[in-house]
Amino acid sequence: MRTLIHSIKKLIQVEERPRQWVAGRDMASLNCIDNAYIVLNDSIIEDFGPMGQMPAAIEGPVERIDASGRMVMPAFCDSHTHLVYAGSREVEYIDKIRGLSYEEIAKRGGGILNSAKLLAQTSEDELYEQALARTYEIMGRGTGAVEIKSGYGLDLENELKMLRVIRRLQQTSPLTIKATFLPAHALPAEFKGRQTDYVDLIINEMIPVVAAEGLADYLDVFCDRGFFTVEDTERMLMAGMKHGLRPKIHANELDFSGGVQVGVKYNALSVDHLEFIGPDEISALSGSETMPTVLPGAAFFLGMRETPVRQMIEAGLPIALASDYNPGSSPSGDMRFVISLACIKYRMLPEEAINATTINSAYAMGISDTHGSICRGKVANLIITKPLPSVEFIPYAYTSNIVDTLLLNGRAAAGERLIRN
Amino acid sequence: MRTLIHSIKKLIQVEERPRQWVAGRDMASLNCIDNAYIVLNDSIIEDFGPMGQMPAAIEGPVERIDASGRMVMPAFCDSHTHLVYAGSREVEYIDKIRGLSYEEIAKRGGGILNSAKLLAQTSEDELYEQALARTYEIMGRGTGAVEIKSGYGLDLENELKMLRVIRRLQQTSPLTIKATFLPAHALPAEFKGRQTDYVDLIINEMIPVVAAEGLADYLDVFCDRGFFTVEDTERMLMAGMKHGLRPKIHANELDFSGGVQVGVKYNALSVDHLEFIGPDEISALSGSETMPTVLPGAAFFLGMRETPVRQMIEAGLPIALASDYNPGSSPSGDMRFVISLACIKYRMLPEEAINATTINSAYAMGISDTHGSICRGKVANLIITKPLPSVEFIPYAYTSNIVDTLLLNGRAAAGERLIRN
Repeated sequence: MRTLIHSIKKLIQVEERPRQWVAGRDMASLNCIDNAYIVLNDSIIEDFGPMGQMPAAIEGPVERIDASGRMVMPAFCDSHTHLVYAGSREVEYIDKIRGLSYEEIAKRGGGILNSAKLLAQTSEDELYEQALARTYEIMGRGTGAVEIKSGYGLDLENELKMLRVIRRLQQTSPLTIKATFLPAHALPAEFKGRQTDYVDLIINEMIPVVAAEGLADYLDVFCDRGFFTVEDTERMLMAGMKHGLRPKIHANELDFSGGVQVGVKYNALSVDHLEFIGPDEISALSGSETMPTVLPGAAFFLGMRETPVRQMIEAGLPIALASDYNPGSSPSGDMRFVISLACIKYRMLPEEAINATTINSAYAMGISDTHGSICRGKVANLIITKPLPSVEFIPYAYTSNIVDTLLLNGRAAAGERLIRN
Repeated sequence: MRTLIHSIKKLIQVEERPRQWVAGRDMASLNCIDNAYIVLNDSIIEDFGPMGQMPAAIEGPVERIDASGRMVMPAFCDSHTHLVYAGSREVEYIDKIRGLSYEEIAKRGGGILNSAKLLAQTSEDELYEQALARTYEIMGRGTGAVEIKSGYGLDLENELKMLRVIRRLQQTSPLTIKATFLPAHALPAEFKGRQTDYVDLIINEMIPVVAAEGLADYLDVFCDRGFFTVEDTERMLMAGMKHGLRPKIHANELDFSGGVQVGVKYNALSVDHLEFIGPDEISALSGSETMPTVLPGAAFFLGMRETPVRQMIEAGLPIALASDYNPGSSPSGDMRFVISLACIKYRMLPEEAINATTINSAYAMGISDTHGSICRGKVANLIITKPLPSVEFIPYAYTSNIVDTLLLNGRAAAGERLIRN
């Protein structure tokens, strides 16, 4: 069954040949076709071009969609989330507004350890239902692929519970989902003063089981001041690689922690957060295969310093953007708002922000061969927008939802209405 | 015809007796009833209380709404917008990101004068259609009453065109709408070097005609550095008051301009923006009948300094919040996101931000007798929320839409779905 979308005002992020990513000055370019059509063959993009070249007839049954006034772009790839969690943490957020210290908040049950406690008390089914609702919400805002981390389990049983919920989402959701194992997200309370013992446990017991069950694609470590050291991180990344888990790490959110350098050293797929970036970090990333990934939602919600994105782009680096959807530092998975933040706070151009949320974030989750652009043979994960005056309107109208219809694997998966004729 | 909404998880912003506004420490309190019902008699709130006191029978035909798991709160009052305008200005916004100066942007057609040029070329019907679409969008986010300013006309003919569009919206939209005449929004190009002549024109020709046609409720002046002086402002406010137009002014966005003081002197209903507030401004506002109104969307979008809201509340002042929806500095009318910004950027508590977007913003547009709270006899402008875990979740989930159904004048006016049984 084929689908023909015709009379598209603008077809955005078109590739004749697939690229791995877009870097440096090239990020300011976005290949588009005005007044275009696209043909999907089941779940795959088969053809596209300007309306003047649209084939007069298409073989077999065809569903036609009139996209007059609307644009079509690749669905967003959100390469960094923690959207499997139990309960929200708004009370802790209000405690922060009231000026309570980190210690007081922790005492009242805040932070990652609070999420871990709640998660341990929550059944796998309940966890799945809560996460499923969040997948619907992000699909409604245009996300078509998402990476999800464990990391609120912090013991084998509960980490496995989280990873099994992610697997269930992979089996039941039309989203493309990658799973990342993040046992070193925080030090469990019972290991206080014995961080090396917890790292040993991760290396000797947890990683082998998770790898044997095939539950994770990547291994993440929170390598930062007050969390895990560069030495801890090296040991865990080596263990992960032995079991086929490529690194994808939390780095330099709280300090110049060496996280970026250790990530690059172990060929991490991405290093994420990056509030603390100087010449050494930029130099380490240059020429590497590691995608620097910025999480503007967390920086906005927590009032953190901003990553020097303009310097990084000027140095020729690529940038990916992700939502960091999680209950503590970014209770939002809205990638269109991430684009607005990138432009408003980091002075990224709309074209740069769109590259960073499509092809580059696809790379950062290991799917740029199949996702992140409109390219023949790639998966038909597409946003049909509401009527839009321009590409620039996408970041500019900073609270408007642009999604008319989200197509995942060529089929309508979310959206307010579907225009068909 | 009566409507009974029952099994409400929490009824928010309840008043036994109507208040004008809430100020200082009282802003941190929000009167709520858990597990509540509310009865509407046509467009008016007739009764409410805890479920245990719900009347067994209600006279006449009754429509019943089951609000299990949902909260009910007053619809937002947005007391400062410019939502009648022609065309969006995203290109100018991108020019700012690219680092172009204000002068270069103006040369390329940016700024208020660009909006004025576009508006002059746009028919009244087209202007109405564009504005109508924006009213639907804000209703979908929970706004039930909105103030709309002229100010992109800058000559009598085009200011009247804008005010007539506002009147048409008043006649056709279920929103409660107040109209503000803002001829002194910027100096028209043809008056360059002759600002006094333009002020004379406003006083001698424009105000009398607008007042005679009954097209405006309030008079606004942009009293700030580089715009209109305190002396200009005094002359215009006096002329407006002679014609029954109470002031409501733009003040202290760009400097300690004296705008707040002149506003209070002429008993302005509100002074709005307020990025530059010190002890003198706080002292002028204390004990006045002028509502200080903060516009967090514009400060966010333009990266401006933040109003010292905590100091103002500690000094006993009330605060209202509004969206400033306009094409240049805040292309959003989402009052729920305004609440998130107020909490994240200004450290307001959720209760303070809800008071500031309901009862206090109702005062700032002159409708707190009839709107802004759940009170017997007030207009039934209500948000029935989606299932929410807590009041604090409203600012916390900073991109989530909380509106299940918006009731205006007791009838469903917007929302994704309506639960009735």
